[in-house]
Amino acid sequence: MPVNLTAPRAEDLHPVQGLRLGVTEAGVRKANRKDLSVLLLDEGASVGAVFTRNRYCAAPVQVCREHLEGGQAAIRAMVINTGNANAGTGAPGLQAARDTCAALAKELGVQPQQILPFSTGVIMENLPVDRIVAGLPAAIANAQPDNWAQAAEGIMTTDTVPKAYSLQAEVDGASITVTGISKGAGMIRPNMATMLGFLATDARVSQGVMAQLARELADGSFNRITIDGDTSTNDSFVVIATNKADHEEITSLDSVPGQALKAAMLVVSRQLAQAIVRDGEGATKFITVRVDGGKTQEECRLAAYAIAHSPLVKTAFFASDPNLGRILAAVGYAGIDDLDQGRIELYLDDVHVVTQGGRNPAYQEEQGQRVMKQAEITVRVDLGRGEASDTVWTCDLSHDYVSINADYRS
Amino acid sequence: MPVNLTAPRAEDLHPVQGLRLGVTEAGVRKANRKDLSVLLLDEGASVGAVFTRNRYCAAPVQVCREHLEGGQAAIRAMVINTGNANAGTGAPGLQAARDTCAALAKELGVQPQQILPFSTGVIMENLPVDRIVAGLPAAIANAQPDNWAQAAEGIMTTDTVPKAYSLQAEVDGASITVTGISKGAGMIRPNMATMLGFLATDARVSQGVMAQLARELADGSFNRITIDGDTSTNDSFVVIATNKADHEEITSLDSVPGQALKAAMLVVSRQLAQAIVRDGEGATKFITVRVDGGKTQEECRLAAYAIAHSPLVKTAFFASDPNLGRILAAVGYAGIDDLDQGRIELYLDDVHVVTQGGRNPAYQEEQGQRVMKQAEITVRVDLGRGEASDTVWTCDLSHDYVSINADYRS
Repeated sequence: MPVNLTAPRAEDLHPVQGLRLGVTEAGVRKANRKDLSVLLLDEGASVGAVFTRNRYCAAPVQVCREHLEGGQAAIRAMVINTGNANAGTGAPGLQAARDTCAALAKELGVQPQQILPFSTGVIMENLPVDRIVAGLPAAIANAQPDNWAQAAEGIMTTDTVPKAYSLQAEVDGASITVTGISKGAGMIRPNMATMLGFLATDARVSQGVMAQLARELADGSFNRITIDGDTSTNDSFVVIATNKADHEEITSLDSVPGQALKAAMLVVSRQLAQAIVRDGEGATKFITVRVDGGKTQEECRLAAYAIAHSPLVKTAFFASDPNLGRILAAVGYAGIDDLDQGRIELYLDDVHVVTQGGRNPAYQEEQGQRVMKQAEITVRVDLGRGEASDTVWTCDLSHDYVSINADYRS
Repeated sequence: MPVNLTAPRAEDLHPVQGLRLGVTEAGVRKANRKDLSVLLLDEGASVGAVFTRNRYCAAPVQVCREHLEGGQAAIRAMVINTGNANAGTGAPGLQAARDTCAALAKELGVQPQQILPFSTGVIMENLPVDRIVAGLPAAIANAQPDNWAQAAEGIMTTDTVPKAYSLQAEVDGASITVTGISKGAGMIRPNMATMLGFLATDARVSQGVMAQLARELADGSFNRITIDGDTSTNDSFVVIATNKADHEEITSLDSVPGQALKAAMLVVSRQLAQAIVRDGEGATKFITVRVDGGKTQEECRLAAYAIAHSPLVKTAFFASDPNLGRILAAVGYAGIDDLDQGRIELYLDDVHVVTQGGRNPAYQEEQGQRVMKQAEITVRVDLGRGEASDTVWTCDLSHDYVSINADYRS
């Protein structure tokens, strides 16, 4: 059961002018499943993306990087299959990703380099290119601007609910739309080893700043979540500006309109990223880990991730057991070499648990117990050595996590 | 159920001349439990130790470091309690550890700095010093040279079997004995957040090389195991030479006798370290992860630990499911920045699963299935970029791990 997360309503997802989405059943791995989606862009769109930092990245990730870095021709379409990650597939896998691009390019009358391919699913099995290619015409025929809800379903794997979010904002005096979809669990994904995120706006943004925009949005959202610490081979996050809105082109993210757009897009990115955690495998709780008082943001992030990754901390949350020394232990091994444990403060929501590195004399176990029973919990640590902060979102570790991942595939 | 591990027989554990062990029930946390042990050394012993690298280290660890670094007076005794880790306890915790040392020193007629204290158990609760001090006379009265089996029990927490190993070897023409005990799970421990290891020999070793000996032995044994990636606040590994054997004092580990002694002690250290993994919380399989072909041993270790820590890899082992792409993904995010995935080879025992980064065409799923069903499995990865190797030992991640850690304390 996802934590405080329900499927989006189609009518809440604003179309983005200049972008159409189509979905079909291609039978990639199983029959009767929406497993093939295309995302078609009018001429003139700007596209930026960030991909997994896993060195063992999937074939489609390698092809995406080539096509984006080439930069000769603007991106005109994306193709996404579920059921098979096309990772750990060597040279035949690369060929399969290229063949998919070539087939879609031919259907659309564009160049193969103008296509970005994405795959998600089981690792180390060969991609059934024939079935994907055979499904393309139906996916294209299905393409419409108001098809975001169906596309959110079309990219699901072990997700239990589709994930989408949309808003409208004002940028440089013009009304703009931001709509996005995501699946799987972040940089850090259990089962199918893939998270995908697609975020589109009709705002006008020059191609030159798209890579930076994608990076900064990911950094404030998808790069701040974890479920189990496993960085996937296929993680991809794509940002699209269709350039249809009625304002001056944004050529710098530091400009006033650039900042306004980024703020609006960050809201959607965070909603999509947090949705992945809320629907994390076996998740029963949604946990915000905030670390203050660091010398640098980097060390705050190290400490926050150490807490968020600790199986001991995560099982304690699952059990609603305020066994909070486990949080201190995680901070201690986070890699902050000159940490002074005597300055650490720990809060669970509003409850002050640890002061000066030891148990707060005023802390009562019942107070911790009360917070631990909630479905949404904020852990706040103060390192007492500076002014920097950072935040990470995660979930607990439950029996269902083990069941899902032990049973998957078999 | 531990993996191929049974309790040691008392008659297999050779006494080490110059060392006596005593155990009693002090009621630290629960009644009717052997929870207080002392280890008494004759005058003239050499002692070295390594401790957790967790910056949030426990009070007894801090006191041990002080007493060893002081170096004014030789160590004459150690005191170990279970049931309470005396970690996250601030200034009162430090005082409690010092009071324990003072009390034992008084009983023995030595200085407090000649005592090393150890605690293991729940974090962030105050140590009941009074009960420990009250139990010391009974523990001392119980002390005998042939009491290793009882001491192995006396330091247990969530361990399901006591852990001890002993051998006799020849060093510099003399017969020497090496005997040791351990508990909990390595640098990396689930539940009670503590591993302890005590290793003693009657060989003659100068105090000057003891720290190096402890470091090198830990590096080849306890620093190569993981259960869940949580580095504890209390990990301690102590090496004792009682200097009673009949050979020239060893003043260098590079000498022939020094190497012979280290080899013998490493056998015992590895047995004790691997015993901790075999009895890891919820463990159903014992897994050796060996990484060859690295440029440096350090990068091999990174890759081996990435595999050994991955919840996805560990649940696949639990399920006996050869979902081996998960191993590739872990290698990919291990942090080897210039890794070439096209050179990676993967073997499961004798089965060649991956070649040149992709699925080996000759690999059949049934072969992987056969190996995955075994209780002992070796994963071997070749990075194809150098001559270095490293090995790490770990276990799988089962439902019992979640149950044990979710239920603990509550």
